Amino acid sequence: MPSSSLNIFSEKYKEIIENQFRRSVEGLQAPNVLKEAMLYSLEAGGKRIRPLLLFATIDAFQKDPEIGLHAAAAIEMIHTYSLIHDDLPSMDNDDLRRGKPTNHIVFGEANAILAGDALLTYSFQLLAEAPESTISLKNKLALIQLLAQSAGAEGMVGGQVADMIGEEKTLNLDELQYIHLHKTGKLLTCSILSGAILGEANKEQMEQLEKFSYHLGLAFQIRDDLLDISGDESIIGKPVGSDEENHKATYPSLLGMNGAEEALEKHYHLAKEALLNVGDRTRLLEELTDIIVKRDH
Amino acid sequence: MPSSSLNIFSEKYKEIIENQFRRSVEGLQAPNVLKEAMLYSLEAGGKRIRPLLLFATIDAFQKDPEIGLHAAAAIEMIHTYSLIHDDLPSMDNDDLRRGKPTNHIVFGEANAILAGDALLTYSFQLLAEAPESTISLKNKLALIQLLAQSAGAEGMVGGQVADMIGEEKTLNLDELQYIHLHKTGKLLTCSILSGAILGEANKEQMEQLEKFSYHLGLAFQIRDDLLDISGDESIIGKPVGSDEENHKATYPSLLGMNGAEEALEKHYHLAKEALLNVGDRTRLLEELTDIIVKRDH
Repeated sequence: MPSSSLNIFSEKYKEIIENQFRRSVEGLQAPNVLKEAMLYSLEAGGKRIRPLLLFATIDAFQKDPEIGLHAAAAIEMIHTYSLIHDDLPSMDNDDLRRGKPTNHIVFGEANAILAGDALLTYSFQLLAEAPESTISLKNKLALIQLLAQSAGAEGMVGGQVADMIGEEKTLNLDELQYIHLHKTGKLLTCSILSGAILGEANKEQMEQLEKFSYHLGLAFQIRDDLLDISGDESIIGKPVGSDEENHKATYPSLLGMNGAEEALEKHYHLAKEALLNVGDRTRLLEELTDIIVKRDH
Repeated sequence: MPSSSLNIFSEKYKEIIENQFRRSVEGLQAPNVLKEAMLYSLEAGGKRIRPLLLFATIDAFQKDPEIGLHAAAAIEMIHTYSLIHDDLPSMDNDDLRRGKPTNHIVFGEANAILAGDALLTYSFQLLAEAPESTISLKNKLALIQLLAQSAGAEGMVGGQVADMIGEEKTLNLDELQYIHLHKTGKLLTCSILSGAILGEANKEQMEQLEKFSYHLGLAFQIRDDLLDISGDESIIGKPVGSDEENHKATYPSLLGMNGAEEALEKHYHLAKEALLNVGDRTRLLEELTDIIVKRDH
């Protein structure tokens, strides 16, 4: 269970970021249906893991987490657009996401594609327009560059393409890891390193946080795979066993349940170890790691 | 006919930008099919009007047009991604573009969506990564902000949504103009104003170039509408008469052929007039305007 201080932290920053979504989208001079489609998926809930990791990383450097508001909102917008596009009929063809109809089911396929495009584009605008009093020009550009690298062909989008290619063949562990490190890992890493940029981490701390992110990302994915087998449908909000049904390579399918549990334990341990080298204010990051590794949805 | 100096200018900068596309995409650490899909549409030809407007605007301020390379490539990447997504089955459902099979016909729908996403994302990376010796931090951020505004919900994507909404009702001239000023106009304006940022235009010159862009964008679109009626299929590379067949509102449908020709003449004249106030080195921009207004494809 998360400690009450993490609970308070999470509630506070979830609210802050959700307010930012409404402010950003409602202020747009754009057709209403587009704004509704953008906000629908932004507000569809979710654990806001990426923003919370970013805020918690800034906190580790004794700075006000709120300086990360624009970066956190930008990253969550990218995450949200990727879910909208992933759910499309030509991709995963999912009708439900977190128990609610997916974007294209509600707004139609064309609007869903365009809402995704608009969120992706807006994420960069949000960073570019952040007040200079909050983020220096140099840091803004560093954040934009990191976000684009993490989200694009060399990051999340590349991972998604590799995942589709992988569906047509038998994957080995290296190939499976490549997919996860890109499809989900890069944006998690981006969240943490964006926090480090804003927290003015030194080079050694950056390296340790990158290592932390690497292991956290893999632990996150192994947990996901395990939940698909042993999770509770009513909690995870999607059918259990869908990976096996789709003949999808997973950690348990390659390593067995015990092997996957062991790998999870290993990456969890290495993630925690890396944190020890970052400083003595990493308690929020540690607790988030526990939540990610032990979550039931 | 373009003068030989514009011809030389166009050939030179088309080559420069196409080299940049290959360099950018081939250097990516990403699945091959994604890189192929990105490059396929980037290399599908086209008039490169946006990059040429950008380079010509820089030239008007007596600076080396090549400082606009990253901005021009970024804008053309955005334009290219928008064509890939527009052609999708759930959008315009086009099989051919410039006489060649569209991206989703060659690579499949999912890859086409992802190649578009990757190009959109990469355009911001390219700007963020441009060498500081070429573009100052301040100008990079100004270019990123302008590009995101022009391409996103308040610009091109918003125009595309408005266009889809418009297909289901009878448009008046104001609504038709709103669509065109956003769907195509914003990115043309972005090209010219990006050139002005890099050329260090003053406020008055910026305003005149914005006026120029406004009228040029409308002239561009009216020309497009006229070509759909009286153009030569073998030259424009798509069927003539498709707008009427789709009951699409156009300038000729709202104003008649003569009225549309007059509106074209008016915007052409006002575009040229605005240029007079920019300076005395705008000959390339004037000639590009002539080409855009008088083009046969």
